Amino acid sequence: MKVAVLGFGTVGVGVYEMLQSTTGLEPGPVLVRPGKDNEPFKVSSLDVILNDPTVDAVAEVMGGIEPAFTYVSSALRAGKHAVTSNKALVALHGTELQALARENHVAFLFSAACGGAVPFLHNISAAVPSDRIKSLGGILNGTTNYMLDSMQRRGMDYADALKDAQRLGYAEADPTADVSGLDALRKIMLACAVAYDVLPDEGLLCEGIENFTADDVKDLKKRGLTCRLLASGGRNADDSIYAYVEPVLFQASAPECSVLMNFNMAKYDGQNSGKIVLMGQGAGRYPTASAVLRDLTDIRGGKKNMIKTSCVRGSANNEGCAHRYYVRVPAEVSSEFPGEAGETENGFCRFVTNPLSVAFMHKTVAKLRMNGCSIFFAAMDEE
Amino acid sequence: MKVAVLGFGTVGVGVYEMLQSTTGLEPGPVLVRPGKDNEPFKVSSLDVILNDPTVDAVAEVMGGIEPAFTYVSSALRAGKHAVTSNKALVALHGTELQALARENHVAFLFSAACGGAVPFLHNISAAVPSDRIKSLGGILNGTTNYMLDSMQRRGMDYADALKDAQRLGYAEADPTADVSGLDALRKIMLACAVAYDVLPDEGLLCEGIENFTADDVKDLKKRGLTCRLLASGGRNADDSIYAYVEPVLFQASAPECSVLMNFNMAKYDGQNSGKIVLMGQGAGRYPTASAVLRDLTDIRGGKKNMIKTSCVRGSANNEGCAHRYYVRVPAEVSSEFPGEAGETENGFCRFVTNPLSVAFMHKTVAKLRMNGCSIFFAAMDEE
Repeated sequence: MKVAVLGFGTVGVGVYEMLQSTTGLEPGPVLVRPGKDNEPFKVSSLDVILNDPTVDAVAEVMGGIEPAFTYVSSALRAGKHAVTSNKALVALHGTELQALARENHVAFLFSAACGGAVPFLHNISAAVPSDRIKSLGGILNGTTNYMLDSMQRRGMDYADALKDAQRLGYAEADPTADVSGLDALRKIMLACAVAYDVLPDEGLLCEGIENFTADDVKDLKKRGLTCRLLASGGRNADDSIYAYVEPVLFQASAPECSVLMNFNMAKYDGQNSGKIVLMGQGAGRYPTASAVLRDLTDIRGGKKNMIKTSCVRGSANNEGCAHRYYVRVPAEVSSEFPGEAGETENGFCRFVTNPLSVAFMHKTVAKLRMNGCSIFFAAMDEE
Repeated sequence: MKVAVLGFGTVGVGVYEMLQSTTGLEPGPVLVRPGKDNEPFKVSSLDVILNDPTVDAVAEVMGGIEPAFTYVSSALRAGKHAVTSNKALVALHGTELQALARENHVAFLFSAACGGAVPFLHNISAAVPSDRIKSLGGILNGTTNYMLDSMQRRGMDYADALKDAQRLGYAEADPTADVSGLDALRKIMLACAVAYDVLPDEGLLCEGIENFTADDVKDLKKRGLTCRLLASGGRNADDSIYAYVEPVLFQASAPECSVLMNFNMAKYDGQNSGKIVLMGQGAGRYPTASAVLRDLTDIRGGKKNMIKTSCVRGSANNEGCAHRYYVRVPAEVSSEFPGEAGETENGFCRFVTNPLSVAFMHKTVAKLRMNGCSIFFAAMDEE
């Protein structure tokens, strides 16, 4: 199976290299920007690839919505299988691309868009025909995990942890999508699409790590807790889907605490399989390329899709999920959060609330922040 | 795809139930012992299944070597796909069964034989075409993990931990295969067959947990270490394969320490993917059945095999692997193990050795035990 590579950045180079040594696959042309086609295997026009009957599949690893969407659509219409590592693309256009693949009798897979080398979507997809996935999620963003780990194990403050992550190439110059939780949220949207046949794009809730401070670290250490940024999805009792991202606090014995540096940890809870946990590198050239290559190997073995053509866009319902929350809020607004009596220091009160719905928590905090309140909150893991 | 189930014990009941709700699969007849065919879907003669043209596949979940081997061979010869959860069968006859499957143009998969619900062999198999697996292994026996966890977190002694595991159905009346490490060893044999095209059945080394005592637990606690029983396999620099089982000691931050109760943790290190860790329930009705069903779903999707027809039996070479070892030995033989000066108490000396080869360690201990020495040893994890 000959595979053209769309994009020759960090991941593209890895995919092109790995194609040369993968059983049953071979590299086709690599699409680069005009003027960059300085080697015989590079082309700067998609048409060369679309019109080449020896190209069976494309691997899109350019990132961004356009021209990626146009290119992948065109490839599917031309009867080429497509795989992508582009979570923004699949979160926005996944159902349309799946429909196009189906119409053209070709495959569309996107394992590398969620979890890097961690075979998360692949394994959910393999479990779905025979199991009922009750919930799924995990630590799906390596940048924020690196920062949280630096703050908690190495005592760095937020600004230094961010600078360090940028220096190492884990965080981008504009780190907003990572630290705000948006990147993790897109990944849980994809996981829900695979597990539940619904790609939730409304009603989502997202709290990142921007409000986590060195003082918070000190207090959590006293309580024996470790903070991780978790993406969570699942099926409510009424069959609606929940999907949200927020910091969560774990006891030392939880596997989440062993997820260090920029590693990812994905999990799902199958009615039959029980809880399955998957850990590995969530980003980087070869880890991400290895997920692209696994998808291509799956296509060669006959796999057609990760989401069904029946998959629809839908709204998440986060009213039904409730946790106790650890909060650090200005003392004067602490009564907004029913819970234990807190301790006040420097005008801030820290305490653990009674069980509150995820929807209530995120909305109440958003309202208070509109009034200028500085707040950190994190769910208590109580599994 | 209609699937006959061979055996109706713990796992068989789970497989039969799950077949009724799995997309694209349906249950066929269930083979039981003569006289036990007291329901319409049960048969007591394999021939009924072999001669039924509507049966596409068999799921062998009887355990034991015979009649399982004869039954699976006959099914493959009759042109039926076969999946099995029987690690003893695959460790002994895997290469022959694979050859038979190939000759008859049918599939032979055995995910459920290693790791229960943990999708270990499935993921190694998916990675092999595009990646080079440098090493693999993990906590592959739930019974011993339950016992080690009971001893270390709940302060039980070995005998009580074993009794408790038996009471809960985790350990069999004769627990030898589990506590001696043989069960874990068989699983690493299968993993090597999938990853390396070699099923090692000579030169294997195996140390279980029978020599681990409450006194050892106390001393390890002081050192901040946790003991797990690890199976290890991989490729040596000269391309030979190593494969062995032994207790290993981990620092608190290692993910192995978060593997509690009877859970399993499998891992592999791919040259491209990096380290991948998989955790879940290693045994039990539905977890094991879920692995059987995943294999059947894979067959429906076109997957033919986990080991290649080229897979050969071979010898493991454990000379090249070296670790520092923690040892508890009679003081008078401590000089057999070069290392730090140990502390002596009640005639036993405890210390950490210099790096020693796995082969040297296991052979030296075996020799001393022949002379009546009581010894516990465990490798130091130093990743």
